Amino acid sequence: MIEKKVTIVGGGLAGALMAKYLGLAGHKVSLFERRGDIRDATVVRGRSINLAVSTRGLTALNEVGLRDRVLEEAVPMRGRMMHAVDGTLTFQPYSKDPDECIQSISRGGLNQLLLTEAGKHDNVDLHFEKRCIDVDPDAGKAFFIDERTGDVSESEGDLVIGADGAFSAVRAHLQRTDRFDYSQSYLDAGYLELHIPAAAAGGGFAMEKNALHIWPRGKFMMIALPNEDGTFTVTCFWPLDGESSFGRLTKEAEVAEYFKLWFPDAVPLIPDLMSDYIKAKPSSLVTVRAKPWAVGKVVLVGDAAHAIVPFYGQGMNAGFEDCRILNGLLEGNRQHWPVAIANYSAARKPEGDAIADLAIANFYEMRDHVGSPYFLLKKKFEKLLHKWLPGLYTPLYSMVSFSNTPYSDAVERSKRQDRAVAIGLAGFAVLLLSLFITLGSLLWN
Amino acid sequence: MIEKKVTIVGGGLAGALMAKYLGLAGHKVSLFERRGDIRDATVVRGRSINLAVSTRGLTALNEVGLRDRVLEEAVPMRGRMMHAVDGTLTFQPYSKDPDECIQSISRGGLNQLLLTEAGKHDNVDLHFEKRCIDVDPDAGKAFFIDERTGDVSESEGDLVIGADGAFSAVRAHLQRTDRFDYSQSYLDAGYLELHIPAAAAGGGFAMEKNALHIWPRGKFMMIALPNEDGTFTVTCFWPLDGESSFGRLTKEAEVAEYFKLWFPDAVPLIPDLMSDYIKAKPSSLVTVRAKPWAVGKVVLVGDAAHAIVPFYGQGMNAGFEDCRILNGLLEGNRQHWPVAIANYSAARKPEGDAIADLAIANFYEMRDHVGSPYFLLKKKFEKLLHKWLPGLYTPLYSMVSFSNTPYSDAVERSKRQDRAVAIGLAGFAVLLLSLFITLGSLLWN
Repeated sequence: MIEKKVTIVGGGLAGALMAKYLGLAGHKVSLFERRGDIRDATVVRGRSINLAVSTRGLTALNEVGLRDRVLEEAVPMRGRMMHAVDGTLTFQPYSKDPDECIQSISRGGLNQLLLTEAGKHDNVDLHFEKRCIDVDPDAGKAFFIDERTGDVSESEGDLVIGADGAFSAVRAHLQRTDRFDYSQSYLDAGYLELHIPAAAAGGGFAMEKNALHIWPRGKFMMIALPNEDGTFTVTCFWPLDGESSFGRLTKEAEVAEYFKLWFPDAVPLIPDLMSDYIKAKPSSLVTVRAKPWAVGKVVLVGDAAHAIVPFYGQGMNAGFEDCRILNGLLEGNRQHWPVAIANYSAARKPEGDAIADLAIANFYEMRDHVGSPYFLLKKKFEKLLHKWLPGLYTPLYSMVSFSNTPYSDAVERSKRQDRAVAIGLAGFAVLLLSLFITLGSLLWN
Repeated sequence: MIEKKVTIVGGGLAGALMAKYLGLAGHKVSLFERRGDIRDATVVRGRSINLAVSTRGLTALNEVGLRDRVLEEAVPMRGRMMHAVDGTLTFQPYSKDPDECIQSISRGGLNQLLLTEAGKHDNVDLHFEKRCIDVDPDAGKAFFIDERTGDVSESEGDLVIGADGAFSAVRAHLQRTDRFDYSQSYLDAGYLELHIPAAAAGGGFAMEKNALHIWPRGKFMMIALPNEDGTFTVTCFWPLDGESSFGRLTKEAEVAEYFKLWFPDAVPLIPDLMSDYIKAKPSSLVTVRAKPWAVGKVVLVGDAAHAIVPFYGQGMNAGFEDCRILNGLLEGNRQHWPVAIANYSAARKPEGDAIADLAIANFYEMRDHVGSPYFLLKKKFEKLLHKWLPGLYTPLYSMVSFSNTPYSDAVERSKRQDRAVAIGLAGFAVLLLSLFITLGSLLWN
């Protein structure tokens, strides 16, 4: 077995999973994380504190033997629970199959587990408070500064994996190489997190446990995901500027009025609403695209390659799928890693674009349409088709969340299905019309 | 008069013109250029050594009193001269009005003139070999390192103007601020420059002097612009990889064969073809978009705000228009520069996008269609309409090159015109058909 030396920049979800994969494969792995070890920290703050893992993420976790461990601490969400302004609840299951659900898990908990699991391999070293300051793609080198001592060190090997997130330092260096396409674009909306505590000392849930809760309100919305401890993490997705925006809603009285007007059923569940809202700074929502994902001996995975907005619940799932595909290609081409990473870039770049587009489209769908009767009818119709035409019709949401079909294939197949359904409906209408005419002429003659 | 203190980063075309504008307005200007003073250098190499100035550029030059000085050394190009493979020449004038032409000028010469003119003002300081290493948008500060001594200095004032080109250091810092949209994307084609010397010792031109020469060949093309000294600068725009690409054509014999096959009439005019081709490294073609163009006390002009591909001959013209508009807004809002630069960003960003799109579209038009009979017919028809319907129909090329109409308005107007012409033609066809039917019934009855 040929062992290789790999440098991983970033110890977040994708970086830690990649370290676990490569550790299992027997490679010499050095992982460098800018921040301190989150396993030492008391509370992880800032980024959203729970997220939804679905089939793609679980497939990768299964390959490294961690699927069941993760699911033990997850809360299944079997559908969307829509909250109307008048408090009416409408439950919309994700699938006709109750096993097809998404799982709410703690981001911090999963990150800690992956780091611990990666660190168990003697061939994996984890380094914290090491900020990447430079990359040499041709030499396969990355350079780090120690955030405590200021010492500069380098790590050289067969591969540098940039897993350092949406504002990746590794990618920033690749961006300066010739013919590297790059874009970052922000939504007009931002987000801010609030908290629903457990209903009782015993830990009961204050709302339906097994659902992703949505308060769709047209130009703004709020969602809530359950945590295992009976709490919910609430996220407001509102415009950053202009009418009904975070920028305008800054005075306590106005904020209180606004929540009462639009989210009356949630207000009594969020005791620290005012203090949490006032002290929080809304975060922005960025989509990052890069091309290629491999330059010299450097390759990008996860948010560093494709930061996406969170509205399809696929950010981490797509990142874990990157790790799975990259690991497969590296293992399948042990003698030819440059070929492996070039193939990875060619294969995965269109998938990153596809899920980025879907996530943006789903923002508008969740915000604008998810509560409309037409949308609910369409979803019901999709589910009927899925039931009547098993194997022939699968809703896009199911292909994205409950399969490992490449995102771009799912999008193409969904378009074909929609065309076929439109033709079918037109045919059905013609048939009805013919029947009507036939009946008419029979009756009148 | 309120004098302000302005830092300009970059002493290229846009930076030097901006210094001249602000120098005339009486502001205290410090300009910092990364490279040495091009007025000391013997030969300017690297960037294309001539470019086409048209109405927008001349309008700005006129405002600073330099239009006539620049035109003295320019070569008017009154149309496109198409070179077919068999050597057939077809001349296509840019306008029905012979005064509407584009002017070929030396990039280096113009840059030197603008620096000298800016430096004539006591209130303008020019600093060379000073590389921008950081920007503080809120404080209006820029930081520089002296490329010779390594000393770091700062410049603080009311405004920092980033005029430091496609790979702007100023913009790279803005890119890290929240909600800054940015993209860079490369064409698959690159370029390489060759040289046609004067035909005779007397300085005669080896081809028609007053034309932009084009050898359109489908997936690749070559162009040549005249210089005042009787020479032509030739630029090959070819794919960087794949068939018939710079990447493949590296062996001397193959290159010679290729030129003989596709550009036979040009080969005898380029004596150093082989040596120039072999020693040159093809350059890539990037389009850069940014948003906003103003952050805090920092504002972007020229390529730093909107690097575009060269196929509409508008890169410098758009940059000079930025300077003209920015200067007008600063002068009109002497008490409120933050308002002025916010208005500049809002007004100019769509124009940068419009000309970026046009330039990319024109690459495909020049490469693929410019030699086709259909294209020539269309251009002739456009010119007839322009003549028949003065003030009502103006070809897009004329609006872009021979007016100061905002690019986005030109694009919109062109679309409206095209629709009107299509409707007119359809009406004409109906009229013809009616006439034919009427005539027919008269004759047959």
